[in-house]
Amino acid sequence: MGSGHNRAVPSSVADPEDEDRRLPDTPYLAVDRAVLERNLAASAARARARGVAWRPHAKTHKSLAIGRLQLQHGAVGLTLATVGEAEIFAAGGFDDLFLAYPIWAAGRRADRLRALADAVALRVGVDSVAGADQLAEALRGAPVEVVVEVDSGHHRTGVDPRAAGELASHAVRRGLAVAGVFTFPGHAYAPGAREGAAADEARALDVAARALVAVGVDPRVRSGGTSPVDYLPLDDQPSLEFPITETRPGVSTFGDAQQVELGSTDVADCALTVVATVVHARHGEAVLDAGSKVLSTDRAAWATGHGRLPAHPQARVVALSEHHATVVFGEGSVPAVGSRVRVAPNHVCTSINLVDRLVVVEGDEVVDTWPVDARGANS
Amino acid sequence: MGSGHNRAVPSSVADPEDEDRRLPDTPYLAVDRAVLERNLAASAARARARGVAWRPHAKTHKSLAIGRLQLQHGAVGLTLATVGEAEIFAAGGFDDLFLAYPIWAAGRRADRLRALADAVALRVGVDSVAGADQLAEALRGAPVEVVVEVDSGHHRTGVDPRAAGELASHAVRRGLAVAGVFTFPGHAYAPGAREGAAADEARALDVAARALVAVGVDPRVRSGGTSPVDYLPLDDQPSLEFPITETRPGVSTFGDAQQVELGSTDVADCALTVVATVVHARHGEAVLDAGSKVLSTDRAAWATGHGRLPAHPQARVVALSEHHATVVFGEGSVPAVGSRVRVAPNHVCTSINLVDRLVVVEGDEVVDTWPVDARGANS
Repeated sequence: MGSGHNRAVPSSVADPEDEDRRLPDTPYLAVDRAVLERNLAASAARARARGVAWRPHAKTHKSLAIGRLQLQHGAVGLTLATVGEAEIFAAGGFDDLFLAYPIWAAGRRADRLRALADAVALRVGVDSVAGADQLAEALRGAPVEVVVEVDSGHHRTGVDPRAAGELASHAVRRGLAVAGVFTFPGHAYAPGAREGAAADEARALDVAARALVAVGVDPRVRSGGTSPVDYLPLDDQPSLEFPITETRPGVSTFGDAQQVELGSTDVADCALTVVATVVHARHGEAVLDAGSKVLSTDRAAWATGHGRLPAHPQARVVALSEHHATVVFGEGSVPAVGSRVRVAPNHVCTSINLVDRLVVVEGDEVVDTWPVDARGANS
Repeated sequence: MGSGHNRAVPSSVADPEDEDRRLPDTPYLAVDRAVLERNLAASAARARARGVAWRPHAKTHKSLAIGRLQLQHGAVGLTLATVGEAEIFAAGGFDDLFLAYPIWAAGRRADRLRALADAVALRVGVDSVAGADQLAEALRGAPVEVVVEVDSGHHRTGVDPRAAGELASHAVRRGLAVAGVFTFPGHAYAPGAREGAAADEARALDVAARALVAVGVDPRVRSGGTSPVDYLPLDDQPSLEFPITETRPGVSTFGDAQQVELGSTDVADCALTVVATVVHARHGEAVLDAGSKVLSTDRAAWATGHGRLPAHPQARVVALSEHHATVVFGEGSVPAVGSRVRVAPNHVCTSINLVDRLVVVEGDEVVDTWPVDARGANS
């Protein structure tokens, strides 16, 4: 389908088959433009209220169209995870990109990083002496801002914040332009953990920034942010010498079932849902044509299922195959075979990465399609 | 990269950076052609030994090149899950396709099914009266073979085998050409469950076939098959009136970590691995640049992790983010930052669906790339 307007009449008056013919065949990902705009405005407003720059993570949407909306809402630039994503956004006209990842700059990737550095204002992460050495050799003096990743409690990548000065100092000796520190407080992804992770993040960045100052490096950039923390109500911030300067939420652009179950947002505020058809119904249960190849199988231990149905708050997606979702409706009535239902995926980032385009809707009307430009750009 | 030969010298003598420059940047999916050919020959031979037709499920590889290899190894045709996949394989010259799914043939999908039926020998599944009615309206007499899906114990889709006759009879009255029955014994995906699921599958197809005979329908097609059952040693088959006529394994084309942990195959016989780079190392653990966006997050409750490392049998992938895999190496030595390692994903079908191309290798040599032609064809 093109990007023109394609009016769908409400299902209450339409012949169901005609309606289906006007809409894409299921399953597909629908983005409610009004909800999306509301979410972007809210995330940007929270960053402004906290006095930090808003640099949303574009790995979530991988879409030039949504990246442009984020700039319109006040983003200072975008965050990305891979060189491949950055190449696509650079080609799309974005000029300020942060690869929030300890890039291993070997082989072809070294050439690609230099080319990117020529094209845009580029910032990359580093979290090891070997990584800094490799990056210095790869860049050959190309102008790239380097930030030291520190571990604020998620225990994935990043150095101990107290060791950030040592690594920064080494990077500077290798000729790298160290601009500060960053962290990803991913341990916020657990019930009741958001407030603690937010405090951990602030403390870790402050400790790391002071470690940089101790070795004579200006910790101008102190970048944090994950969606569970982004959604937190604005509270008294801890009084720290080096507060956070920048936030990088991804998921809060849309919202998803994980955020609903973490208490971050409401399912009605999820801007993206998978539209699916009931292909099988039995007592209390139905099977949808949306499986792991469109919803993805991300499911935290604390999740109640594989997504949530906005129109059926009691329903739970209890099993996923590649092209089947088994939904238990409990006390609610089970939709008939052939009905269309919407499912908010558990994790919007991995769901979007499974499709080539997003179907943009306003209410019941399909108004546009947006390509997922950087889908699959893993390397 | 193109499809030309691209010799990589062994890492023991090569400058690591030069080697990296000759190979694709990580992460990527590598298919060992010799192991793939061996697996295809073995799966085809098991079907021959059982006296059943081999119709492998192409949702696993979504690749025209691999589909052609399967035909060369004796496949009678291919199995697919979606109309979109079937359109791509039909355009690629495949002429005998089975959509093993209770297709809801409404809207545009009705037109697409008729077009497919014009182009190829098409078989589709049905598991409800409403689905049969919709299919009959959609096909308008187009020549499509219809098979009734029965539930053999997986409790996903499919009718009770004893009710297959009633549904077949209804479908025939609606003008559909009912050719038999099929089932997916997905409950074989659990430790110790393969033998029982194989017996359930055989019994369910026999019961369903007899139910068709009782209403005057010839149950010529009795299609079963899932990889855990495909891998089973050939045993005395139960003596049934209507034995299985066809098998549809998908995963056994490659093998994956799930099959290794189910005892189906050895990790050395996994033809597909994700090639990743160590981006972070610490005591006993490393973090790879291959996360859920290339390994997928499929993980059964009984799995020991998110994939297995052929060269590190004791290692376990204990956590996945989108671009990070955290690997615990236990007693083994941890590869240095910058090393390349290979990971057999838990579920090869969902991993392949995340990439646009497969890198074909013979030993250390990249010999070809194959597009994942039907990637993302969900509808």
